[in-house]
This record gives sequence, structure tokens and C-alpha cells, in this order.
Amino acid sequence: MRYLDEQAIENIAVGAAFLGTGGGGDPYIGKMMALSAIKEHGPVQLLSTDEIDADDFFIPAAMMGAPSVLVEKFPKGDEFVRVFQKLGRYLGKEVKGTFPMEAGGVNSMIPIVVAAQLGLPLIDCDGMGRAFPELQMVTFHLNGISSTPMAITDEKGNIGIMETIDNQWTERLARVATVEMGASSLVSIYPCTGSELQTASVQNIVTLSEKIGKIIRSNEQDDTDKLADLLTVTNGHHLFSGKIVDVERGTTGGFNRGCVTIDGLGEMADEQVQVFFQNENLIAKKNGQPIALTPDLICLVDLETLNPVTTEGLKYGKRVRVLALPCDPQWRTAKGLETVGPRYFGYDLDYVPVEELAQKEAR
Amino acid sequence: MRYLDEQAIENIAVGAAFLGTGGGGDPYIGKMMALSAIKEHGPVQLLSTDEIDADDFFIPAAMMGAPSVLVEKFPKGDEFVRVFQKLGRYLGKEVKGTFPMEAGGVNSMIPIVVAAQLGLPLIDCDGMGRAFPELQMVTFHLNGISSTPMAITDEKGNIGIMETIDNQWTERLARVATVEMGASSLVSIYPCTGSELQTASVQNIVTLSEKIGKIIRSNEQDDTDKLADLLTVTNGHHLFSGKIVDVERGTTGGFNRGCVTIDGLGEMADEQVQVFFQNENLIAKKNGQPIALTPDLICLVDLETLNPVTTEGLKYGKRVRVLALPCDPQWRTAKGLETVGPRYFGYDLDYVPVEELAQKEAR
Repeated sequence: MRYLDEQAIENIAVGAAFLGTGGGGDPYIGKMMALSAIKEHGPVQLLSTDEIDADDFFIPAAMMGAPSVLVEKFPKGDEFVRVFQKLGRYLGKEVKGTFPMEAGGVNSMIPIVVAAQLGLPLIDCDGMGRAFPELQMVTFHLNGISSTPMAITDEKGNIGIMETIDNQWTERLARVATVEMGASSLVSIYPCTGSELQTASVQNIVTLSEKIGKIIRSNEQDDTDKLADLLTVTNGHHLFSGKIVDVERGTTGGFNRGCVTIDGLGEMADEQVQVFFQNENLIAKKNGQPIALTPDLICLVDLETLNPVTTEGLKYGKRVRVLALPCDPQWRTAKGLETVGPRYFGYDLDYVPVEELAQKEAR
Repeated sequence: MRYLDEQAIENIAVGAAFLGTGGGGDPYIGKMMALSAIKEHGPVQLLSTDEIDADDFFIPAAMMGAPSVLVEKFPKGDEFVRVFQKLGRYLGKEVKGTFPMEAGGVNSMIPIVVAAQLGLPLIDCDGMGRAFPELQMVTFHLNGISSTPMAITDEKGNIGIMETIDNQWTERLARVATVEMGASSLVSIYPCTGSELQTASVQNIVTLSEKIGKIIRSNEQDDTDKLADLLTVTNGHHLFSGKIVDVERGTTGGFNRGCVTIDGLGEMADEQVQVFFQNENLIAKKNGQPIALTPDLICLVDLETLNPVTTEGLKYGKRVRVLALPCDPQWRTAKGLETVGPRYFGYDLDYVPVEELAQKEAR
């Protein structure tokens, strides 16, 4: 058990945006919300899943929809607690804490806001170990946990409860509501017991985000050492560095979809990388050949500062590095790949772990 | 107080389909559902709004979406009670009866099924005195009553609760859910106290439907007398008789939309009527000039039998009469016309009451 203070939040916001693989929201917006909440209500208690009672109840709170919209539609501030408390009351159970659904600049911060406002602990786990665009794309789903009852709200005050026959129907019905609400909404979903968090979540993700953020934000190291540290702490691979020469994107079906093209710099000058995304980065190809594939994490960072670049921050001329990290082992199972592998997203590619692709590349 | 038996249901189904002005569902399907329910559970008690307690709670149950879909997607039978009980439990109040939202072959029958299955009375009122395609198009809305909390379900078992900031948002969010659920859903909406039913509903609509159905189904009168009786009991106008020569239609946004063209017969042989619909008939024009306008009721019936013809039953060659009835006076107020007048539906026409249009036509 420890408390998250301002420094911790600054680090978590950056590290979570890195693990958000382009999605999960803008870390600046997320950070401002969380800092404002702990300024008003005091630091937030962080518990590991070992420190919670197996029979207690926990609910996450998260943003759903196109992250780019949140930049324009800044939250009022009451919608996180509203959606969280709505689900709690509907379940009729005392809720003992909250946790993030996914890593991301905004989605790692929303539970901190809820925890601060309600004086509840934050649990050090999430449902992805990264970010993914759809509601059934969580390790809870892989473990047979129902996404519902869930609550959904918007910044205007509309609110709903859903109970569905399966998690794909939750995604379908929540998605159309989200689109109608203006392409973004707030959800509380996958209510879990402590025991379910202990067995079905991705553990210690808040702590990992904090470590990553601390490395990226450090002024004490030179850039080369920072990069080496970042790769060590994440088991990551440095795939490419270059300059963005093209960004195609659109907001369709409540998602940001598109592709960024990066021309190599220095010894990679003749090479080109393309990264395809749906809110999150899904596929990276070098000269047309896959070099990293969902569910492994494809993270774009600033060439020098290593600050994470979200999909809405992609722009012509920006110099970036492409890093890739192995995903949580749960995603590499048959059900994991069926849920979030390349074919689910419409790519006719077999999943190959990033470390194998990197080895092949090195030969 | 009286009981609705098989004969009453047969009559109500036909009369309500007539008042459904093309929408509200197929009376054969509706009738079969209600007959089967009273066969199993016994006759249903019908109470006028004078016979209910002002402080008691009442909830309707209705189908939402494109009526044509219900013909293919026959209900399982448990979804009406499920949506009704869900809302009752959510409200945490004992529900003392049910009522139809609108007149229609199916939507007048669903509350009878619920009443029979749960042993509750049916209240002799509805929210329209006809059928309309959208959720805010009810006299309850005109009287400032909230449509929510509402419940929505589908035949698969997905279920939701919504609370919205206004009735237009209920329509928007329930509509996208309905479309995603396969273009039809079941809703329980506008929970009302007895006092609200006494002041804000359209009264005695079940009894009126029964009277209309009895005339149409009678074998004791010739067709001319039946027509005269039908016009007397409804204050109706006979506008046209002819043969359907064209039907344009499509299912868009969860609605059946289209236009039917009717060429005149006999002394009307040189004339042509077009009726435009969105689930319900909205505008009738003769030789390009309006002869009846929403919110007045435009009812197509079989030329001889006077059986109501729903929009999904329109077909080339069918011989029909076009009748028009004055709507409930609540619809002729400023707020009524703003909610369901021609301009709301996109027609650049001022509303003129059907009796004035008929007088002009007669001159």
C-alpha cells in the first residue's frame, strides 16, 4: 500500500499513455483531471491485488469512443463519479475500490479522479496491460467474466444501464449509444470481485506506468540511456526511427482509424514504416513486411524526448521512434488472439510474437 | 370495470389497427399473441381512468421500431413481461396496471398479454389516440411527463435501462439501440401515476378500438351501412377510393418509410391520391393538394371489407378507401403541432384540420 501524489500522477500519465499504444486518451488532459482531483481531495491510496479482499467488489470507470473527441469535449468532471455510483447502486453492493480498464493517458487517470473524489483505493491492475478499442477486448472477457451490468453516461447527463447476453452485445449496444452521445461516453463495466481481479486482471500496471513515466520524464540521463532503460523495463524492441511523411485518418463508427507513414532517418534512410491504427496502433510494417502485430504493443514516441505520441498527436514532419513490446501472455492464447489478433481487425496476417519478428529482422 | 374476452380482443385488434393509421403492427400477429395469453391466464380486466387510484403506478409495454420486422421476427413471448417487470423493479414501486402507448394491431395487444400474464388490469387509455413513429410523440410528453426511467429489451435477452435529460434524447438513444437490436425492440416507458393517466392520456381508446372493430367485423350489415357507422363513431371523413398503382418503401433508421399511390375508381377515375408514411400514414394528397395532414389520422382500409391496411400490407392492385379522422385535441395545440405536425416530419406544409380540408373539398 502506498499513496499516489502529484509526482506519481505525472509519471503514471506519461507511462500509461506510452502503454496506451496511441490510444487511451491525451496524457495532458488526463493528468490535469487527476491532479485537480487530488489537490481537492488529497492523495489516492494504491493497493496491489494481494492487498484486497477476495469477496469485495470493485468497479472501473473509463472513457469509451474516439479519443480525439475528448480533446474537444472536455469532461465536466461529474460524469466519472456519476457512472461509477450508478453501477454501484444498481448492483446494490458496497464498492471497495476502483481500477483502470486499460492503460492510457486519460483512461488511467479517470479511476484516480473517482478514487480521489470518493475516498476509495485504486487497485494496481487493469484489463489489458495496454489499450484496445472495443469493450470485449479485456482479459476479464478471456476469463469468462461478464461485462454487465454496466453503466454508460455522457457529459450532458443521459445515463443508462445494460445487461447483455454476451460481451460482444455489450460492445455493439454501448458503441451505438456512444456514437449517438457524440462519439464519446463514460462507462463503468466489468464489475469484479477481488478474487476476479487477482486471477483475471493484468497486475501492477499502475506501477509499471509510473516506472516508464519516470524514465521518460527524467532529466538526469541522456537520451540514449533513457531509451536503453525504457527498453529494459518494458522488454521492448526499438524497431525504427524516422519522420512522419503522411497521416491518413477519419472518425468512423466511434473510432479514430487511419495509417501513419514514417520515412527512415540516418542508417534507415531508405526504409519506410507504416503503422495502422483503430484508436490504438495495431500493425507496423517495414517496407511492406510486418514488424509488429496486435496484440503486441506498438508505441510511437518522440525521437528525442521519448514522450508518447497518441494517434491524435500524429502530424507531418514529427520525428518519432517506433518501439514494440510483448503483450501480456493472456493475449497470446487462442482465445486472446481470436479476440484481438490481426484477423479480428481485418488484417490477413498470422500473429507472430514481436520478439520472433525482431530476431528475424536482426538476422 | 369489465373483462376482455376473446370476442373483445378480436374487435380491439382490428379497431386498433384502424386507429394505428398504417403503423402499430399487424393485427393478426397482435391478436394471436393476446388470444393465446387469455386462453392460458383468463380474461383481462379493463378499468377506465376513473376507476384507478390517483397515487398508484402504471407502466405501458410496447414494440418500438419498424413494424415490418416484427412480421419476420416473431416475438418469443417472454420479452413483454421482461421489459415491464424490469422497469417496475427499477422504479422500486408496485405497479398496479398497464396500458397501451399507442393504438395499433400489435401495440394495443402487448399490454393485454402483459396484463393476462401478470394478472393486472388494463387501463382504458393510451398516449396518442392513434400511432406515431417516435417516442416523444405522446400526450404525456405534451404534459411535461418524463419518458424515463425506461426499459428496453430484445428477443435475444439483451436489456437496458435509460434515464435521459429529455424525451428527445430518449428517442435518439432508444432508436440507435433498436436499430442495433435488429430494427425492433420492446420498451416500457413513460411510467405514470393514476393521476397522470387521468389528466394526460387519451381516454377510452380501448373501448373506441373495440367499437370500430365490431363494426368492421360485423356480418349483419351491408358495406355501405358499415362505412356510415364507421364514419359516425369516429367523426371520420371518406376521402377517396381507388386501386394501389405504386408503393415505394424502405427501412431506414429503424423506420418503414415510403409512399403509396392510388388511382381513383368510379366517379374518381381521373384522380390520384398519394399517402406518405413513416411507419404511420402522415400526409395524403389528392392531385398534389393536401387532403389530410398529420396529426389527423389517415386510415387506409380495404374497399369492401373495411379491414385496416397497414403499411407493410400495401401492395399493387389492392383496392382501398382513404379515410381521415380528427386527432385528439391535444395534438392541435402549438406544442402538439411542433411535436407531430407536418413540419416536424420534413413537409413544408401548414397543418389544416381535416374537417376544414374536407369542407373546402366539398365546395
